[in-house]
Amino acid sequence: MSLQPVSLPYLIPDMPPAEEVVPFLREIDGNRWYTNFGPLATRLNDQILRTHFTDDRVKLLLCSTGTAALELGLAALGLKPGARVLVPAFTFPASANAIQNCGFEPVFCDVDENSWVMTPDIALEAVSRANIDAVMPVAALGRPLSASQWDRFFEKTGLPVLIDAAAALGNQEVGRHILVAFSMHATKAFGIGEGGLLACQNDNVIARARRICNFGMDARGQVVGHGTNAKLSEYHAAVGLAQIARWPARQLKRARVDASYQAQMKTCSHLWVSQSFTDNESLGEKVLIPLPVRHNRSTMPVRLHAGIRVSVQSVQEQLAAQGIGTRLWYNPGLHRHPHWVACAQVCRAGESTLVTVDRLNDRLIGLPFHNFLTPQDITFIVGNLRQIVENKEYSASLSQ
Amino acid sequence: MSLQPVSLPYLIPDMPPAEEVVPFLREIDGNRWYTNFGPLATRLNDQILRTHFTDDRVKLLLCSTGTAALELGLAALGLKPGARVLVPAFTFPASANAIQNCGFEPVFCDVDENSWVMTPDIALEAVSRANIDAVMPVAALGRPLSASQWDRFFEKTGLPVLIDAAAALGNQEVGRHILVAFSMHATKAFGIGEGGLLACQNDNVIARARRICNFGMDARGQVVGHGTNAKLSEYHAAVGLAQIARWPARQLKRARVDASYQAQMKTCSHLWVSQSFTDNESLGEKVLIPLPVRHNRSTMPVRLHAGIRVSVQSVQEQLAAQGIGTRLWYNPGLHRHPHWVACAQVCRAGESTLVTVDRLNDRLIGLPFHNFLTPQDITFIVGNLRQIVENKEYSASLSQ
Repeated sequence: MSLQPVSLPYLIPDMPPAEEVVPFLREIDGNRWYTNFGPLATRLNDQILRTHFTDDRVKLLLCSTGTAALELGLAALGLKPGARVLVPAFTFPASANAIQNCGFEPVFCDVDENSWVMTPDIALEAVSRANIDAVMPVAALGRPLSASQWDRFFEKTGLPVLIDAAAALGNQEVGRHILVAFSMHATKAFGIGEGGLLACQNDNVIARARRICNFGMDARGQVVGHGTNAKLSEYHAAVGLAQIARWPARQLKRARVDASYQAQMKTCSHLWVSQSFTDNESLGEKVLIPLPVRHNRSTMPVRLHAGIRVSVQSVQEQLAAQGIGTRLWYNPGLHRHPHWVACAQVCRAGESTLVTVDRLNDRLIGLPFHNFLTPQDITFIVGNLRQIVENKEYSASLSQ
Repeated sequence: MSLQPVSLPYLIPDMPPAEEVVPFLREIDGNRWYTNFGPLATRLNDQILRTHFTDDRVKLLLCSTGTAALELGLAALGLKPGARVLVPAFTFPASANAIQNCGFEPVFCDVDENSWVMTPDIALEAVSRANIDAVMPVAALGRPLSASQWDRFFEKTGLPVLIDAAAALGNQEVGRHILVAFSMHATKAFGIGEGGLLACQNDNVIARARRICNFGMDARGQVVGHGTNAKLSEYHAAVGLAQIARWPARQLKRARVDASYQAQMKTCSHLWVSQSFTDNESLGEKVLIPLPVRHNRSTMPVRLHAGIRVSVQSVQEQLAAQGIGTRLWYNPGLHRHPHWVACAQVCRAGESTLVTVDRLNDRLIGLPFHNFLTPQDITFIVGNLRQIVENKEYSASLSQ
């Protein structure tokens, strides 16, 4: 979050300046309403629907964090205590945190080699081998998943699906049967400081989640089920309203940064492969595939070809020496964190050894990606990366 | 939270206006740091320590809500799954929500007739009858508990103690062994919108709670235990810094409102009895006992004498007809909410029937209490209340 002690930090959040938040703070002064589903939160809810979703059947619940959105979504499913939730190990800890915080057990599985996500096929295979009560696919690094494919998975298996789309607000569609949780943390493309969003097409699920995020109380103040406090305050809603007013301009900036990277990366595409952004594309020569028009890249991950004989840790250090901040994802995979290694409740689905997660973690590096990068910055970053990895011996065949 | 459709609402939060928050928002702009233990949150932490606590051994963790403070405190105790936590039924639902959200079981007990809180004696009796793993006394309606008494309880029983002091920031001391959770919700005396505070004298507990509120990750990003996201954003810290600057002036206003009420209430003290604010006082003629100087009343609860033949619901309706907003606490007691009646994990300690909780709930009404009340408002409120209950038949003996 903080400005790193490097000249090109990995991330600079693009948040609304004080001046743009003030008009909304004045509204709060007038309303004397500070949290608990206030008028600004209601307005932000409507504006997010119009800005970030194309399907008017989508319903939203704003909440305090992306993790809370996951927890509210899971709790609203009405699973039995100890239910087993399938989740890819290639994700941020919050995915499994949320599962455990609801009294459920994460069951880790592997991801697809090209898209770096758990596909419905991977989930079907896992479900055939292990007892699974619900499925949490992850829109890893902001890559949107196919809502219709996951709808079909639900229709086929009857297993509830909650997509962890923390970094994919604006990219991830909401299907007929599935729930989707988003984050509005300052590090995300649409950041408001701290904030989350649960989306689905089912009014009852949203009503249940809303009740859960307000202590489990019904309209008469009677606690009728599980509850906590996960409400979005009017102050964060104020930041959100200021942020959404700047969205078109920000989206354009981000698209330019993306385009700059793509132009640079193509000049040395023999060195790395990209995360696929559609389900049917072949990797071929394509590197950093352009996203559909309304989509927003939220990260710039580069996967070094397997044959390049340099560790991502070493690449990270060498880039840091040039003043370039980077991130390694998700290092390690969730199945290798001490808490989940030690936790008896955690198991792997079937015989999977999560080879792809381990392989990705050994080869992935996130380059700086934010709205303040200039084309010159990007030339400098890609040039340095190229120099570091190109001098290394690598196998003649570029196959993985 | 919202302005009620009455001329004298039960509560009007006294929050900093936009102008007073702006300088801190500009600091955020300069820092480009928006959450995750930022510099404003760190400064607010230090200022709260200096403003609201007298003991310099106290350590704090700021977090997202009062409920989160309870959950972090409970989780930091390292209890076994399914641990049984003793809690009075005379409290807001969040107390028991937090216990269940940590995977523990609430065990409800009764409260003391005079102080309306669970005393160490009540807890000792419950512990002698039921299996209890931890104790959560509640500073009901902002009444501070004796930290030294609860320290002695811990020394005697070895049972961890976490005080739910949601409404008692500024009043509740932190003992040597006990943990205390506070709320900074907009409805509280020191409100920042949404916010919470965990306090204790043990650095290790605070470090553990801090780790839990940041996904269970250690300094190297390894998840080593339970975790969630309960961090206080810089935006809420900004509101808090603006709020703390106004605290001395606000405290004075609140003390004046309190004094006005006390003068008025004394004129008809035969109609009601007060919550005792120290542990040894006799009720006698005292009504609404003055708090020690640095203390702040956060609510104005009135308990009608048992003999007055009018329900608090009827009193509430009649006051509403005069444009006076009120609240009933805690109606019902937690043991009577459908969720906890139905929940097999909940039991009562020993043979207690929670008679005092039920009796309090039948007789307690919260009068408007906030910084915008004038002496005339208070004369009007108490005059109306007096008229409503004085005309009712009540037993010659005022004993309960």
